[in-house]
Amino acid sequence: MAKDFTTREENYSQWYNELVVKADLAETSAVRGCMVIKPYGYAIWEKMQAALDKKFKDTGHSNAYFPLFIPKSFFSKEASHVEGFAKECAVVTHYRLKKDPNGKGIIVDEDAKLEEELIVRPTSETIIWSTYKKWIQSYRDLPILVNQWANVVRWEMRTRLFLRTAEFLWQEGHTAHATEQEAIEETIKMMNVYADFAENWMAMPVIKGTKSPNERFAGALETYCIEALMQDGKALQAGTSHFLGQNFAKAFDVQYLNKENKLSYVWATSWGVSTRLMGALVMTHSDDHGLVLPPKLAPIQVAIIPIYKKIEQLDGISDKLAPIIEKLKAKNISVKYDDRDTYKPGWKFNEYEFKGVPVRLAMGPRDMENETVEIVRRDTLEKNIVPLEGIVERIEALLEEIQTNLFEKSLKFRSENIRKADTWEEFKDLIENKKGFVLAHWDGTVETEQKIKDETKATIRVIPMDAEYEEGKCIYSGKPSTKRVMFALSY
Amino acid sequence: MAKDFTTREENYSQWYNELVVKADLAETSAVRGCMVIKPYGYAIWEKMQAALDKKFKDTGHSNAYFPLFIPKSFFSKEASHVEGFAKECAVVTHYRLKKDPNGKGIIVDEDAKLEEELIVRPTSETIIWSTYKKWIQSYRDLPILVNQWANVVRWEMRTRLFLRTAEFLWQEGHTAHATEQEAIEETIKMMNVYADFAENWMAMPVIKGTKSPNERFAGALETYCIEALMQDGKALQAGTSHFLGQNFAKAFDVQYLNKENKLSYVWATSWGVSTRLMGALVMTHSDDHGLVLPPKLAPIQVAIIPIYKKIEQLDGISDKLAPIIEKLKAKNISVKYDDRDTYKPGWKFNEYEFKGVPVRLAMGPRDMENETVEIVRRDTLEKNIVPLEGIVERIEALLEEIQTNLFEKSLKFRSENIRKADTWEEFKDLIENKKGFVLAHWDGTVETEQKIKDETKATIRVIPMDAEYEEGKCIYSGKPSTKRVMFALSY
Repeated sequence: MAKDFTTREENYSQWYNELVVKADLAETSAVRGCMVIKPYGYAIWEKMQAALDKKFKDTGHSNAYFPLFIPKSFFSKEASHVEGFAKECAVVTHYRLKKDPNGKGIIVDEDAKLEEELIVRPTSETIIWSTYKKWIQSYRDLPILVNQWANVVRWEMRTRLFLRTAEFLWQEGHTAHATEQEAIEETIKMMNVYADFAENWMAMPVIKGTKSPNERFAGALETYCIEALMQDGKALQAGTSHFLGQNFAKAFDVQYLNKENKLSYVWATSWGVSTRLMGALVMTHSDDHGLVLPPKLAPIQVAIIPIYKKIEQLDGISDKLAPIIEKLKAKNISVKYDDRDTYKPGWKFNEYEFKGVPVRLAMGPRDMENETVEIVRRDTLEKNIVPLEGIVERIEALLEEIQTNLFEKSLKFRSENIRKADTWEEFKDLIENKKGFVLAHWDGTVETEQKIKDETKATIRVIPMDAEYEEGKCIYSGKPSTKRVMFALSY
Repeated sequence: MAKDFTTREENYSQWYNELVVKADLAETSAVRGCMVIKPYGYAIWEKMQAALDKKFKDTGHSNAYFPLFIPKSFFSKEASHVEGFAKECAVVTHYRLKKDPNGKGIIVDEDAKLEEELIVRPTSETIIWSTYKKWIQSYRDLPILVNQWANVVRWEMRTRLFLRTAEFLWQEGHTAHATEQEAIEETIKMMNVYADFAENWMAMPVIKGTKSPNERFAGALETYCIEALMQDGKALQAGTSHFLGQNFAKAFDVQYLNKENKLSYVWATSWGVSTRLMGALVMTHSDDHGLVLPPKLAPIQVAIIPIYKKIEQLDGISDKLAPIIEKLKAKNISVKYDDRDTYKPGWKFNEYEFKGVPVRLAMGPRDMENETVEIVRRDTLEKNIVPLEGIVERIEALLEEIQTNLFEKSLKFRSENIRKADTWEEFKDLIENKKGFVLAHWDGTVETEQKIKDETKATIRVIPMDAEYEEGKCIYSGKPSTKRVMFALSY
């Protein structure tokens, strides 16, 4: 399977594209920019969803569902939001088709033109705040802590599977609060929920912080984010959490009566992660042998392959392994026992290696005699013959070890790729030749960031939460600065 | 809460509409025909999804995701499918908006017109079979057992919350098989999965069978269905499973090499249930006091309300109940302990009654003294003071009893509303004055069914799987028939 597979060294971008398709995660469809998420890829997304959904519920949120379509006029209601969002969108103009009177096939029925065009949601702040107006009258109705799992559409011209597609799947949380302080706390809480998920489930270290004004969400007063570093040294925005102030409450006139019977505008947040995380997961851990999955998100955690010539040998191996498989399942470890006779063992080894299954076992007639089994871990490709005795506990420990090892390895890579630049020449050299994150002083202006972007393509990915006070000069303008921000090329 | 609430007797249709809104299940939105599913309603839908998804996976299916949009030309590829589906649809014609040069707001950018219009999926057979063509080459690629959870859009002119909305949520299974026999078995298997879910989770008895040609899915050779009876005597189609033959395989040229290296077209099924089940659930069990939910699908199974004047009383009650709540949660029973001081106990009783919470407990100072608690079951509204001792086991048993009782009650209602008609006069009288299911002989022709529908609005809801051989004459044409079919007015 891995033959004809480009290495990261040869062409990182092509390596990614081939990997996503060949590992059965996703593929392009007949519709420009829209992907098909294949069963194996979707199974990983389901594991992500389940873990995130639990975290959302544990922090007091409920799910709901809002319309796919948004009336065009809604986008004009929040001034900066329309700038950022209502541009490259799918526009529904008609609601009926009819048979072509002049030929075969069907055509749009011009008599069925909508009075007002509908936009397929690129994000749902407007339709949700128009709804919240009905839900919120008094302080007793607050807070509203709602999340939606949905598909959204942004008409991207250049698309890449998972990383940038016209349609993608995501969750969008939309909360309403009585006070500014509570809304800001919610925004930061959800950034932390995302960081916890990224690090402890995806095994992907992230930097927490805020966005510069250029990179802020359209309509937000502050955008918090988690930012990860991919193996090619480019940064990837993995999740964002926005403090929206009272912008949407004012745009949709959402006020509440407080305990003193006074009317005030409601405070808002929104936060989301998407199937883009699938791209981040692939690019963080995978190698030239294919996918590498952290055990907590792997649809199959252990693949077991019997090696046999005669059917009696298979029966013997199956009987031997049955109680072990039972025990693994009882521990909630997902096992695939692959005794298909339509594929040879070597093909199966390649298959599970390429698909990133964390642990692979093989058992043949000699193992039967010796009461042993071959065990291979995907992260290091280390292979060992081990006793069958105690195998369940060994696998359990190994899965934990792989999860930790993947995180440590990624953290080490990231640490090695955070560098400081103190001059413009140094900065340009690092961005061009080393990539990774570059910590540099910046004068805090939109203009300077734009000029840096124009000249190097690098942008401020994140202003870290834990940035220390340090007097310095902006690498571009030389103006004074009090902390370093993180620049990088990005996805 | 229940004041100003229409009774079923007064106006069944209005009772339903008010109930769905007032019980916080769903509401209309700013977009014509599209609903907002509110957190409480969505929590029920999530329970339905979880139970169904597990059944799908237990029967070997995986989830995947296919594009929201379908190229217009795809609908013309399967002749009967285009007739049935590609009519009242949302049509995307443009992909960009721009600022109105003549004023405020935004307008559609006419330069961004799509070459081929895209249809928002009303169902996904076409896009999925165009994808399966890439996935299927040999018998080793079969069967494909895939399901999708998704939103779909059908531009309905008259909409009702859950029962008929322009956008709705559903699951659609699409399977591909090597043989006709295997595909038919799959179709029947999934009808049985749906029936099992309807009866054992929704506590809603259903009749299993097939549809007459008039009511068959566009593109299917046979449509299996489960049909339920609502309290107003109208039938509701609760789920369908279609045997599609080789129609879609031929339309999208999907062939496979069998073991003898010969090319054959693939056999197909598709099956789905939708948020319509929410409407069926409401109409099957609810009463003039509000919602009644079967325990297995209730987001809150037990509501507990402390009754107190002084804060020390509340503390005492809370301490007393804490270990009981712990034990209930340990048994996976969802409990809401409502100690909010912003609402009075009477308001809370009404609230949980109206929202269909199966079991309600109340504890006041006198109960504290007597070591008792008040327990109310929602299905019968029976109220009892019982000892605190053994309350966990009592609740557990009561939840099971309510689940069973709701099913038995619905089954009794349905049994009382299945009647036989042997003449046309009798048939018309039953349909008009009694409603319910009418078992009658039919000559098997499309024309007769259409005439019966034109004259009475009744249609054949289902040809029962277990229909017995019985010689008779068609109630309309007098032609010979060998079994009775089930007619009814329907949603």
